[in-house]
Amino acid sequence: MSSSPRQLFEHLDDVNLDDSPLTLDSLREDKSGQSTDSTPSLLLTPRTVAAVQAVMKIASEHALPVVPRGGGSGLAGGAMGSVGEIVLDLSALNRILEISTEDRLARVEAGVINSHLNSEAQKHGLWFAPDPSSREWSTVGGNIATNAGGLLCAKYGVTRESVLQLKVVLADGRLIEMGHRSVKGVTGLDLCQLMIGSEGTLGIIVEATVKLLPIDRNPRWTIRAEFSDVTKAAQACLSVTAEGLTPALLELIDEYAHGLIGSYLGKQPTGSARAVVIAQTSGASAEVEAKAMEEIFGRLALGVERLAEGSATEELLHERRSMHPAMEAHGKVLIEDVAVPRSRLADMFAEIRRIEREYSIRIPTVAHAADGNLHPNFVYEGDTVPEHIWNAADELFRSAIRLGGTLTGEHGVGLLKKKWLRDELGDDQWELQRAIKGVFDPQGLLNPGKVF
Amino acid sequence: MSSSPRQLFEHLDDVNLDDSPLTLDSLREDKSGQSTDSTPSLLLTPRTVAAVQAVMKIASEHALPVVPRGGGSGLAGGAMGSVGEIVLDLSALNRILEISTEDRLARVEAGVINSHLNSEAQKHGLWFAPDPSSREWSTVGGNIATNAGGLLCAKYGVTRESVLQLKVVLADGRLIEMGHRSVKGVTGLDLCQLMIGSEGTLGIIVEATVKLLPIDRNPRWTIRAEFSDVTKAAQACLSVTAEGLTPALLELIDEYAHGLIGSYLGKQPTGSARAVVIAQTSGASAEVEAKAMEEIFGRLALGVERLAEGSATEELLHERRSMHPAMEAHGKVLIEDVAVPRSRLADMFAEIRRIEREYSIRIPTVAHAADGNLHPNFVYEGDTVPEHIWNAADELFRSAIRLGGTLTGEHGVGLLKKKWLRDELGDDQWELQRAIKGVFDPQGLLNPGKVF
Repeated sequence: MSSSPRQLFEHLDDVNLDDSPLTLDSLREDKSGQSTDSTPSLLLTPRTVAAVQAVMKIASEHALPVVPRGGGSGLAGGAMGSVGEIVLDLSALNRILEISTEDRLARVEAGVINSHLNSEAQKHGLWFAPDPSSREWSTVGGNIATNAGGLLCAKYGVTRESVLQLKVVLADGRLIEMGHRSVKGVTGLDLCQLMIGSEGTLGIIVEATVKLLPIDRNPRWTIRAEFSDVTKAAQACLSVTAEGLTPALLELIDEYAHGLIGSYLGKQPTGSARAVVIAQTSGASAEVEAKAMEEIFGRLALGVERLAEGSATEELLHERRSMHPAMEAHGKVLIEDVAVPRSRLADMFAEIRRIEREYSIRIPTVAHAADGNLHPNFVYEGDTVPEHIWNAADELFRSAIRLGGTLTGEHGVGLLKKKWLRDELGDDQWELQRAIKGVFDPQGLLNPGKVF
Repeated sequence: MSSSPRQLFEHLDDVNLDDSPLTLDSLREDKSGQSTDSTPSLLLTPRTVAAVQAVMKIASEHALPVVPRGGGSGLAGGAMGSVGEIVLDLSALNRILEISTEDRLARVEAGVINSHLNSEAQKHGLWFAPDPSSREWSTVGGNIATNAGGLLCAKYGVTRESVLQLKVVLADGRLIEMGHRSVKGVTGLDLCQLMIGSEGTLGIIVEATVKLLPIDRNPRWTIRAEFSDVTKAAQACLSVTAEGLTPALLELIDEYAHGLIGSYLGKQPTGSARAVVIAQTSGASAEVEAKAMEEIFGRLALGVERLAEGSATEELLHERRSMHPAMEAHGKVLIEDVAVPRSRLADMFAEIRRIEREYSIRIPTVAHAADGNLHPNFVYEGDTVPEHIWNAADELFRSAIRLGGTLTGEHGVGLLKKKWLRDELGDDQWELQRAIKGVFDPQGLLNPGKVF
């Protein structure tokens, strides 16, 4: 007689088991607003790397599919559990093992929360650059598994740029170390790079050695500009990078998003809708770059403010950070995540406006403009994304790819975008990726049905 | 009757054939000072991407091994040809296809020389950061295939950090595109990252889209310090990074290397041997950082100079760049390339001194100190590396790995280090890498016998 999943794992040390209906139901979701149709069988929460290995050994022996999960903050359905699956929660692997000022690095377990690492690093005069909006509850392991972005990538890079070394538990329970603790290292194929952004399909990231940066003691400058339309705002953003400036962040809020945020924050609306750009400069040239940006924005803007570091700048960032709650006040939200080459930002906004007209919907959009990464938002009613919204999103993806871009800049493929992956990659690359997946996970047990 | 390799390829358009003994003999070598035992069969020089595809289609149909080669500047034997092999020279794919100031990128064919790209980029106020010492004759494709380093990596990263997108011809002649022209992109496994540093074992890189940086208009500052011994010099370098400074370059020359460079340049020797550190700072904080570095070096140095931008600084860099010719004046040179975490730099020098004593040899060493990347040099007589030198190198590799480092920081594995690769990677990772190689190149035709 075959054992239940619970029976297979309950003898393991350092693993918490939970199969309560409430827990299992919560694992159908992440922060994408979507959910799977059915609950997984079991939640396992190992407290040691050895326990992760023990779980995977049993799972592979019994051909049980496993969904690795960190903070559950994903936006593409990459960590949602479904019928017959075991969800492997890595959040109890939450120890910071080392912070070295000399080597400017931290060695952490996968479940350490991004902001927790940052507060500890701060005590050593260092910081961890990846800053996804979920940084208060997303894990370093999850940041790496999705190659998470954020607001500061324009200057400080995506998560990939901060990873030195990984410890990974393979599908069959073996533990291997990839990458190098040294800054440089070129021994063979760089499997550490391959793991970054692999969304749990190749192995379980259990430990990471990540780069830390010295804290910048220079005062930051913030610039806020209002434009009569998003095309002018996008042109101004493009001039910033084309003229050799490197802002720490460069956020664009389109007219409609700006209006919704304004109502949400209870601000008096101006006479007409306006697009807004919020930029911040850092480092020794912060003031010089801020002045140059003020001048660039001034050529096209209706108004520009430039502010030295202080409380008023927090208010401006709060405006940007209120985007998501402002949308949620109107219904359920599907946040999209296309990216295009910087020079095509205005073209992508033109495509969004075209799709709005064709589908008779509004698509309030914010963008990390210096990266060409746009988050068009679809607000809808009911539990599932209506078909016409998916059709509009489909057009959005095709437009981004046509403009030399991608259907996901920083959220990943997960469940929500696997339908479009092959279109972007082409058959040959898609087949190659699947074959590599097969090398790591011949039984197809790691995050099945995700990405591919 | 089977055709000769020449007969198989001579009907192809846009491919130059050369099987002259002199040419084939020259292909046994690269810049490592080593050579293979036998000459390859044929040199093919395609002038278009389609011609590369046509060559690979025929090669795979006839199971002919192919060695991709760029500028021939490798230091690990990765592009040496041998009996039965076709050498595929990519240097005629030398067009710069696009330079975009708006997207801050260049799209180039693989055979474009690094310094040529840089002189063209300069006209647009941009530069290409990877700066291997071979930059006057190495190709961008070769830089990417080896993930080349250089002097400026401490601040500007290795080649990997500059690559956005690649076009790759697979073993069977299919062309695929990997990566993204946009700054961000997370669609599935990142095969572009896997290609970087793969040393011609997975596919033929034929085109690359690379990031360019705005030229820094701030005057650079240069600091030179002399120390009574290399341990003090290494400690001073470590303090530089530990105290939050980020020099553009930080080069350490040990006592013996300094003496040899001094004789080569005809300088008066000082009373006793001294280790030297040369640092350069860049960007808006160049002067502030240079002053801070002067203060740090002053704590341990016998003397420190700090120089504003100008001709004297070129002289200092010339001192560092004379290392290789200074060695070559004494015999043949095997340049090693270990890397350790920054904090272990002094420990690695102690290991080098121990190995010198045990083998009764001298190992003059320079280091990219901010990366923990050391180049110990073995000078010897005769055509092949004597056994006791390889034994000493073997100990060097083991010491670096024991200190948490790697046997190659920036040169790659090629032929010269494949013997040690498995020791560093461990069996499990080594097998995984080989299996991935098999996915790309099931017949094992791409650069056979290299790396693995």
